Amino acid sequence: MRLAAFRLATEPDGVRRVGLVVGEGPDWWLHPFADGTDLVELLAADRADREAAADAAARGDGLRPAQVRLLPPVYPVAMRDFLTFEQHVAGVGKGMQGHEFVPDEWYAAPSFLFMAPHAVTGGYDDVAIAPDTERFDYELELAAVICHDVRNVSPEQARRAIGGYCVMNDWSARDVQGREMKLGLGPSKGKDFATTIGPWVVTADELDDFRDADGFLDLQMTVKVNGTVTGSDRSGHMGWSFEQMVSYASRASWVKKGEVLASGTCGSGALAEGWGRTGELTPPPLRVGDVVEMTIERLGTIRNRIVAGTETVPPIVPARRRVREEV
Amino acid sequence: MRLAAFRLATEPDGVRRVGLVVGEGPDWWLHPFADGTDLVELLAADRADREAAADAAARGDGLRPAQVRLLPPVYPVAMRDFLTFEQHVAGVGKGMQGHEFVPDEWYAAPSFLFMAPHAVTGGYDDVAIAPDTERFDYELELAAVICHDVRNVSPEQARRAIGGYCVMNDWSARDVQGREMKLGLGPSKGKDFATTIGPWVVTADELDDFRDADGFLDLQMTVKVNGTVTGSDRSGHMGWSFEQMVSYASRASWVKKGEVLASGTCGSGALAEGWGRTGELTPPPLRVGDVVEMTIERLGTIRNRIVAGTETVPPIVPARRRVREEV
Repeated sequence: MRLAAFRLATEPDGVRRVGLVVGEGPDWWLHPFADGTDLVELLAADRADREAAADAAARGDGLRPAQVRLLPPVYPVAMRDFLTFEQHVAGVGKGMQGHEFVPDEWYAAPSFLFMAPHAVTGGYDDVAIAPDTERFDYELELAAVICHDVRNVSPEQARRAIGGYCVMNDWSARDVQGREMKLGLGPSKGKDFATTIGPWVVTADELDDFRDADGFLDLQMTVKVNGTVTGSDRSGHMGWSFEQMVSYASRASWVKKGEVLASGTCGSGALAEGWGRTGELTPPPLRVGDVVEMTIERLGTIRNRIVAGTETVPPIVPARRRVREEV
Repeated sequence: MRLAAFRLATEPDGVRRVGLVVGEGPDWWLHPFADGTDLVELLAADRADREAAADAAARGDGLRPAQVRLLPPVYPVAMRDFLTFEQHVAGVGKGMQGHEFVPDEWYAAPSFLFMAPHAVTGGYDDVAIAPDTERFDYELELAAVICHDVRNVSPEQARRAIGGYCVMNDWSARDVQGREMKLGLGPSKGKDFATTIGPWVVTADELDDFRDADGFLDLQMTVKVNGTVTGSDRSGHMGWSFEQMVSYASRASWVKKGEVLASGTCGSGALAEGWGRTGELTPPPLRVGDVVEMTIERLGTIRNRIVAGTETVPPIVPARRRVREEV
C-alpha cells in the first residue's frame, strides 16, 4: 500500500490530508482517506484495519497528479541518518585522506547522527540552493518511517516498528559541511535547509518479496541529474538492515513513532563521492535549473528542480574573543 | 519568574503539570497553574498575561519539594548543542591532538549539532550509567528554551524567541562518543541515554541585570562531584550570545517553539577536558553512587545520583561485509 500526504493544488494553505496511491507510473490516482486520518497511525494500525480504510478510500473519487501537491509523508519527531554503505564511506574517505579508507569503527556498529528535523520537503518540491555554498550536492538514501515507540528491542522485535519506506534526498552544502566537520560535530548547517522525502510511503508489508536471505531489503537505487544517470547502487549493499539499525538506536534510548531513519548515502549516491575519488569537481556541483531525480525500485521517484535562494539570511557573527577581556 | 514542570510524588504516572516556583534555597514552594497550562505557551505569552497567570497561581495552595517530582521543563521538538566555550575546545583538542588547538573554523561561526531529543530527564532524577562505557562523564551547560518559531532573524529579532534559561547536564560516554567521532558523525549513542535539564526555567526577563556590555548573559557556573567543586566558569566566556546562536541557526532554516539550544560545555565543565589536558583520568570517570551537582547563578541547582543501568540492551551487530557476496 502506498500512502501520500497532500494538499489540494487549489488550496496552497489548505489542510494536510492523506491519500491512497493507486496505479503505476506517472498517471497515478490519489484517493483521500477520511478527514483527520493520520499517516503514521495508518502505518501503526493492524493490517486488516489499514486495508479496510484503504478499501473505503478507494471507493471514493480519486484525484490526478495535477490536482494535488504532495507533502512530506511525515514531519519527523526526530531524524537519524546512518552511514551504512561501505562504498560511500571509502569514497568520501579518499577525498579527505588521500586513499580509500574505512575505519574499523565503521564495521563495529551502525553509527548515525541526529539531523535537522524541520527541513523536510515534498517529493516534487523545488529546492533552493543553500546560502554560502559553492558545492551543492545531493545524497540518495532509503528512509524508513517509525510507527511504534521502541526501546531495547532486538532486530526481530524492531520489525513491527518500521511502518514503511520512502526515497530520501539529503541535500548537502559540502563546503559548509566540511567546515563543521573540522570541529568534530558532524554536519548541521551543511544540511539543515532541505531534506526531500517521498514521493509517498510504501508499507513494509509490500516489500517482503524484496528481502534477501539475511532479511535485508534489496532494492535498486538510481539518481539522475538532468536525465543522465549519475549514480546507482542496491540497498542490499547496506552493512546493516533497518531492523538492525532500529535495534542499535534503541539501546538504552527511545526510538519514537514519527521518526525517520535513513540509510545514509548509497554507493555513488552523491557527487562528493566522485569528487573524493578523482580529486576533480566532475560532474560539477548542482546549479540553478538542474533537475535531480531519484528512483528506488518499488518506492517510486522524487524529482526536484534547483532554484535560486530568495531568502535574506542574517550575517554570520564571528566569536567574541576572550583576549578582549584580558587586555 | 521560575516555571517548573512536575508530577505529584503520590502519582508517579499522573498528569504533567506546571507550577510557579516561589522562595529561595532548598525550601521553595511550587504553586500549580491552572490545569492544562503549557510551560512553553507561558513563556510565549505577553509579560502581563504571564504575570496575571502567576498571580492567580500564587493565590492557590503551594506544594513543598517532597510533594512533587520535578520533570524536564520541556520535551524538546529538537535539541541543538553548540560549542561556544573556547577553553573547552582547547582542552578537549589537547586530548585528541597533543596540544591545545582551536581550529579557525571555531572562531568563524557558532557551530552546533542536533542532539537526541527524547532523552531529557528531570533536575533531581537518578541517572543510569550508559551501556558499554568505562568513561562516564558530565557536561555543565547553560540552555535556552525557544518559545516562538523563527527563521532568518537577526540577533535582535531572536531575543523574543528565547523564553527562558535553565541548567543542563549533557551526560556523556566518552569512549562510545570517541568511536563515533572517528567516523566524522559527531556523538549520538555517546549521549542519547540522558540529558538533565532543570531544575526549572527562569524567564529571560528576569536575567536582564546579568547581561554584560555586549548583551551576553554573564552567570557563574559550577559543578561539584560528591560535594567537591570539579569545575567552574562564567557564561560571559561564551564566544557568542544566545541571540547570536539562534540567529545563526535560523539562517535559511526553522528554529521552532519548544526547541532547546545549549551553550556546549563551559571551561572545566567536563572531566574529559582535564583528562585531555593532563593525559590522566583524574578525577576518575563517574561511578555508581556519585552525586553530580550543577549550579548556575540565578537559575538554580540540578543534582543527580549515578545509579547502575538495569536495562537489558540488545547486542550490537557488526556490519555484513560485502566480500561475502563477492566470494
